Amino acid sequence: MSLKPFATPWPPPAEMGKPKRSIDELYAAARGGERRALGRLLSIVERGGQDADQISDLAHPDAGRAHIVGITGAPGAGKSTLVGQLVRDLVGAGKKPAVLAVDPSSPLTGGAILGDRIRMDDIVDPGVERTSAFIRSMATRGHSGGLALAVPLAVRLFDAAGYDPVIIETVGVGQVEVDVVGAADTAVVVMTPGMGDAVQANKAGLLEVADVFVVNKADRPGANDVRRDLDLMLDLSHMTGQESETGYRPPIVMASALNAEGSEEVWATVEKHRAHLDESGLRATRRQHRIRTEVRARLAQAMAAAAEATMDGDGATLLRQAEAADISPTQATNELLTHLLNKGPAS
Amino acid sequence: MSLKPFATPWPPPAEMGKPKRSIDELYAAARGGERRALGRLLSIVERGGQDADQISDLAHPDAGRAHIVGITGAPGAGKSTLVGQLVRDLVGAGKKPAVLAVDPSSPLTGGAILGDRIRMDDIVDPGVERTSAFIRSMATRGHSGGLALAVPLAVRLFDAAGYDPVIIETVGVGQVEVDVVGAADTAVVVMTPGMGDAVQANKAGLLEVADVFVVNKADRPGANDVRRDLDLMLDLSHMTGQESETGYRPPIVMASALNAEGSEEVWATVEKHRAHLDESGLRATRRQHRIRTEVRARLAQAMAAAAEATMDGDGATLLRQAEAADISPTQATNELLTHLLNKGPAS
Repeated sequence: MSLKPFATPWPPPAEMGKPKRSIDELYAAARGGERRALGRLLSIVERGGQDADQISDLAHPDAGRAHIVGITGAPGAGKSTLVGQLVRDLVGAGKKPAVLAVDPSSPLTGGAILGDRIRMDDIVDPGVERTSAFIRSMATRGHSGGLALAVPLAVRLFDAAGYDPVIIETVGVGQVEVDVVGAADTAVVVMTPGMGDAVQANKAGLLEVADVFVVNKADRPGANDVRRDLDLMLDLSHMTGQESETGYRPPIVMASALNAEGSEEVWATVEKHRAHLDESGLRATRRQHRIRTEVRARLAQAMAAAAEATMDGDGATLLRQAEAADISPTQATNELLTHLLNKGPAS
Repeated sequence: MSLKPFATPWPPPAEMGKPKRSIDELYAAARGGERRALGRLLSIVERGGQDADQISDLAHPDAGRAHIVGITGAPGAGKSTLVGQLVRDLVGAGKKPAVLAVDPSSPLTGGAILGDRIRMDDIVDPGVERTSAFIRSMATRGHSGGLALAVPLAVRLFDAAGYDPVIIETVGVGQVEVDVVGAADTAVVVMTPGMGDAVQANKAGLLEVADVFVVNKADRPGANDVRRDLDLMLDLSHMTGQESETGYRPPIVMASALNAEGSEEVWATVEKHRAHLDESGLRATRRQHRIRTEVRARLAQAMAAAAEATMDGDGATLLRQAEAADISPTQATNELLTHLLNKGPAS
């Protein structure tokens, strides 16, 4: 029996008869510029597990060149419209940008990214996107741990595949998202009049991680109030010594992404921050912080797996005692912890 | 030198000259009905640490009577207005309800609870609140781990102090909040027309944890659409076998909390679910699930602390190698994990 191409469009003719490629082969193809191979590797990264770890180890020596930019803000702040314009500008300037749009799958706000995605598609010409830029959405399917592991790996892969800058876009609604953006080389926080004001951003820890502020929808009433509030907060953090020791003060850029105003100034400000990182030697510090954050997340996940194994294995009796109220949850925890750290996970 | 009361209003005269009470003394006073002692214990619980663990161990044998009700929904769904009415109804019926309003301090949405709180105060007469009910907000100060530890402990404390029911109110914007509500005896999900629709709730895993649905603002256009969507989803989950094996189908209650309509039916439906838990024997299952969730959260926090200690101690060299890109993050993680699980945390 001979295998012949079908007349159906799926699987695509180009794939017909080809054996499934190994991760090594996919990686080599992605490094060589094959977009489909990169897309497949990103899907594996999204799923996590040992295959994802293999990709991480492959990409690790080849990465380290790209400038990593995190962009966050409340749903509806116009992040994706802005990112779409940045991509268009960057491609026009001969760059090869990648965008990782993180969909936190956040309960009851999960729809925000999808709407934004459509707007980004309006701005970025599909032809351009197919040649010089790579835009990818990544969902976390409900477990925030997955996000903390998959994002640094996807960034490493984009970096190793020659994309620069790598832009991470995320809705700033959770600590993990703030951590992801805070681990970038340059963290951009997008604010708008009337929602997600400066006080909220401060509470969320966004002021601490921001390197550049964008007040988007600057044509709306209240934009100057947002700017003034931000300025005041920055003054306060300067006085209390929370600001960077290098004297860097996060600039505030007014923009109106929907009217295509401000994206060039946003990028010029990001570039200024990039120069500041190089001059001050802070680039290495950022990189170290990023690695530490990634290792911490990986370790937490591995330890949680070990804890689950213990709770199902050797520690099941302890857990049943706690469930039956014979011992307190704190006692059960302490004994499980001792067991876990002294004997390793139940196997 | 003798200590005399000052003429200033602070510290309050009643406290003057009293030595600071121990946790045991505070606990005994709270059990005896002293509200100020209970408030202090809740503050300690919120801060976490060993003192909080001591309170947990004290309260553990005295708790187990209260019916625990979780109420969640998107910001602005009218949860607090509804909870305020439930409290008023319950106090009127001679009950002693406690409310724990969890402020997730979520970046850029953190303001929702504060606004709701003001509305709840409009509904619950301060005199009533001072005598029969206890309403407490709890913030997590940015670390979601704190929420997962503090909420079960605060609930245990309310329970031990004789409050029943204990209502946990939370904005359904994160996995931790969904977990908290899902660990209650009865989980109530509040929906409204036009926001946080059934598809989003499904995505967020809220349909899986819900025991009672409330369609609030039922006087608004689209309320019947929300109900129909929910019904359809419940039909689907029934067909695919996701629904409870006991044949319980979460009822949908139409309400208009702002017009004081529906709160009595909501509570009657919660009581029906309570009866279902007792008849089906599911109450014990819920309790076990709750303990397991709490122990898991405690264990995760303790292990994270051990991991941090290792990263700062014996594992610092490994981490520096990863930061310097001499080894990959996966390698560093695996070696740190081996170290951690075989030798215990660096001391």
